[in-house]
Amino acid sequence: MKARVTVMLKSGVLDPQGEAIRHALGSLGFAGVTGVRQGKVIELDLAETDPAQAETAVRAMCERLLANTVIESYRVELV
Amino acid sequence: MKARVTVMLKSGVLDPQGEAIRHALGSLGFAGVTGVRQGKVIELDLAETDPAQAETAVRAMCERLLANTVIESYRVELV
Repeated sequence: MKARVTVMLKSGVLDPQGEAIRHALGSLGFAGVTGVRQGKVIELDLAETDPAQAETAVRAMCERLLANTVIESYRVELV
Repeated sequence: MKARVTVMLKSGVLDPQGEAIRHALGSLGFAGVTGVRQGKVIELDLAETDPAQAETAVRAMCERLLANTVIESYRVELV
């Protein structure tokens, strides 16, 4: 089965990449963009077929490798 | 309104970051991960309130800045 992990910086954490995108969009003439945050998305193909076990495994992967939980939050979706 | 753009490398394009994650997960003892692809997610706060116009604007942003459409595909969701 497939899992999709979305990792975003937590809301209080400065996101210079997002700010750079916001400025670049303004320079290109796209008005009305009031905020931009950039994060990562990681799509995993898993051999596991049980949804509950797959989610537990993916959450463990997030805690140990995929996200820095001090500054990032993550969301797991099974697809 | 908010829009979420997901940018992924197209399926034929080599994804070294995804491969690195797959190897690292294997080294940490997570078996059964058969494939990993990494992409970007960009969350935009828009002043626009009409969903159709917002989607048109965000697609234009993707074509001009957010995605390299030669090697990347993008998906727009309004949230």
